[in-house]
Amino acid sequence: MAKRIKRYEAFADRVAEQIRRGILAPGERVPSVRQASRSQGVSASTVFRAYYLLEDRGLIEARARSGYFVRERARRLLEEPTPGPRGGMGAEVAVSELVFSVLASLQDSDTVPFGSAFPDPALFPLARLARSMSRGLRERPEAAVIGDMTAGHDALRRQILQRYALAGVSLLPDELVITNGAMEGLNLALQSVTRPGDLVAIESPAFYASLQVLERLGLKAVEIPVHPRHGIDLAILAERLAGLPIKACWLMSHLQNPLGASLSDAHKAELYRLLERYEVPLLEDDAYAELHFDTRPPRPVKAFDRAGLVMHCGSFSKCLAPGYRIGWVAGGRWAEEIARCRLMTTISPSLPAQWAIADYLQHGGFDRHLRRLRHALESQQRAMLAAADRYFPSGTRVSRPTGGYFLWCEFPGRVDALRLMKQALAEGISLAPGPIFSASRGFRHCVRLSYGHSWSPRSEAAMRRLGELLDAF
Amino acid sequence: MAKRIKRYEAFADRVAEQIRRGILAPGERVPSVRQASRSQGVSASTVFRAYYLLEDRGLIEARARSGYFVRERARRLLEEPTPGPRGGMGAEVAVSELVFSVLASLQDSDTVPFGSAFPDPALFPLARLARSMSRGLRERPEAAVIGDMTAGHDALRRQILQRYALAGVSLLPDELVITNGAMEGLNLALQSVTRPGDLVAIESPAFYASLQVLERLGLKAVEIPVHPRHGIDLAILAERLAGLPIKACWLMSHLQNPLGASLSDAHKAELYRLLERYEVPLLEDDAYAELHFDTRPPRPVKAFDRAGLVMHCGSFSKCLAPGYRIGWVAGGRWAEEIARCRLMTTISPSLPAQWAIADYLQHGGFDRHLRRLRHALESQQRAMLAAADRYFPSGTRVSRPTGGYFLWCEFPGRVDALRLMKQALAEGISLAPGPIFSASRGFRHCVRLSYGHSWSPRSEAAMRRLGELLDAF
Repeated sequence: MAKRIKRYEAFADRVAEQIRRGILAPGERVPSVRQASRSQGVSASTVFRAYYLLEDRGLIEARARSGYFVRERARRLLEEPTPGPRGGMGAEVAVSELVFSVLASLQDSDTVPFGSAFPDPALFPLARLARSMSRGLRERPEAAVIGDMTAGHDALRRQILQRYALAGVSLLPDELVITNGAMEGLNLALQSVTRPGDLVAIESPAFYASLQVLERLGLKAVEIPVHPRHGIDLAILAERLAGLPIKACWLMSHLQNPLGASLSDAHKAELYRLLERYEVPLLEDDAYAELHFDTRPPRPVKAFDRAGLVMHCGSFSKCLAPGYRIGWVAGGRWAEEIARCRLMTTISPSLPAQWAIADYLQHGGFDRHLRRLRHALESQQRAMLAAADRYFPSGTRVSRPTGGYFLWCEFPGRVDALRLMKQALAEGISLAPGPIFSASRGFRHCVRLSYGHSWSPRSEAAMRRLGELLDAF
Repeated sequence: MAKRIKRYEAFADRVAEQIRRGILAPGERVPSVRQASRSQGVSASTVFRAYYLLEDRGLIEARARSGYFVRERARRLLEEPTPGPRGGMGAEVAVSELVFSVLASLQDSDTVPFGSAFPDPALFPLARLARSMSRGLRERPEAAVIGDMTAGHDALRRQILQRYALAGVSLLPDELVITNGAMEGLNLALQSVTRPGDLVAIESPAFYASLQVLERLGLKAVEIPVHPRHGIDLAILAERLAGLPIKACWLMSHLQNPLGASLSDAHKAELYRLLERYEVPLLEDDAYAELHFDTRPPRPVKAFDRAGLVMHCGSFSKCLAPGYRIGWVAGGRWAEEIARCRLMTTISPSLPAQWAIADYLQHGGFDRHLRRLRHALESQQRAMLAAADRYFPSGTRVSRPTGGYFLWCEFPGRVDALRLMKQALAEGISLAPGPIFSASRGFRHCVRLSYGHSWSPRSEAAMRRLGELLDAF
């Protein structure tokens, strides 16, 4: 299970953050071991280990007899995207057709998958999971089938509760409902607190599937802009909560899709105070929780939840077992209603998948896998950022998320992302155009690019070709 | 895959039907081999094989030098239940709380499981399925994960389409949507054709989960009585369709839960003509399709569907793989909408479960397993019917379904099924009380008993004890 943060890891994170913010610039010398040890009050060996880790993560490099320097590739490349406009006061959502037509166009498996919503399945320990599946099927008594369908597999529940505890969130066991992926949890949670016609505050840009769910349930979107690094704009959210009868907030506090933004702990606490003040429930979509590049696991807003207002949705789909379709929701006050609604719609998530994941979490080496996965994604991000810097036109702005596998690119205003998508598809390159992330079809000159697949000469060529297509606008 | 009906099996079915209807009474001699061979125009060897089969199914017995006789146990025991009342013109459904409280009371695994909705997991080839799972996980390429999540596993789709073809139903491949069990298929199908407040024609009594779904979606029930053998009352359905703006019919044409009734082919054709005339879509819940005791597979109403009006929902949960949560819907005109709605709510059924079932259907011996399963259920039904005859008070009426694993018992009017349930639970016996099967909480003196678990002295004692509790009313 998740280990404690070691002192050297915490120190490394602080240095990495300075590099990310440009406080330590590319080519600049990082503090010597002696300096750092004194100023930070840590041992020399702690500093050494931290620097080895940063070297391993590609952020600094040793130069003979001169110490450690920030690497060129770690420099701030392109500017960050700008936050979106303020958004309206509650709009009907009508984006589903567009999303489906875009998703259908992405299904050709021969394209360079920059538009994919999924990371490369090769990044996951599928063979090891298969062994856990065999053991789960062998060891689980036949009679358990019926009970497990109602409550969920007990060992899996305990494993998930333990991971919450390690992240500083203590849940009542009854609060946890196992679901068919995070998506089912989000659907059930939203249905538990809204009626058709209600207003729901969402992010702008937002994960397109959340827009489709609002549309399907006849809910209206109050779009709140998201800062590409700091997350949802809390001042505007506060205004909207004060002025409108908003029935729920739905957001990603961490590695937001598509921007990659994360709320700081202070902002999470502030957000929670707002929710409490207006008695508005939060759907916290935390599907990318495990994909952070820092050594610290993030704390969800759920960690601040005193009143049971937060429905926290997680999943193994993006960090361990794609296609197994196992997620969960820690449902706060609405847990029982969510559990009942699940019994009436899908009855239960697949039991073999639950057994396999429970066994894997106990015996499979989840944390070792996660370290490898994060390392791969981080290095793929570096490669894509460097390529964007090389090939994309000046004026392009690119996000620099601290995890996950998406970059958000804001191109000069003359670029039309939907046209770009068609041109790119014709050349075998997929991408996710900005308008599918917006209830009001904004972000016409933005795209989301995935670096979830291993970087290859083909990826590099695709970035170069995208750059040429962009130049032609 | 399903084999053709052999001549001797068809002949055996005809004899079994005569026994079931009392045309051949217990103790009566069945026609001699010579007589039967002449009158039916079949060979003597066909008659012999049919009689061996009927002997094996416990319906007839050989007496030395006298020929074959209908067994005593095969006699018509108790009378059949009476069809329910005509039902109202569209009522709000408010039965979900009652259903949940009853279901919660059934969860103690130590009770005699007459109230269970699931047959004994020991009846299923779980070890063989586990081998198919291992092979499926080993052989399916990693890259298939993403494609299979959108369309469903291609081999599984083909296997299901082949089984439809053998049952005389030809589907367009695009019509088939793999779902998280039949329950998800039914939910998605209903949402595709209704809006809150709409009227839906359902059976009375009906599967309680269908009532809960109506309640959850804010739909109103038009209850149509079901005859315990012949199925839904088509005359009353026709009246209601003529007089009310019914937006959908939801029924089980075959082995209806809880009565076990099945529509004849003639009635299915008549039902379809009604649907076509009023342009009303049908949700055909066929979860028990494979559990018929006859050798012939039943034809669903879907077989009569010329205009794409029937959404036919099936599942492997009750015939092969409980807990795997793999079902499907052949969605007629609404297939694309159903597929999209699934993508927005649960994205995909669990892939390992799909791979395992596809492999099993190809290599596992499904038809052999089904023959064993049906045989076990038929013999368990005989045992429960005989016990009901021995222990239940006079005036009790019991259904005699031609498959599945439920008996419907109608007790004398003084019996209160909810009180009986509490008393029985206190003695470690579960049962499903009549009122949970009715939008209007009717059937107060009825219960559904499951014979889905192997018959034992404990089952026998539980039936005797139920008889004593009934006598006390």
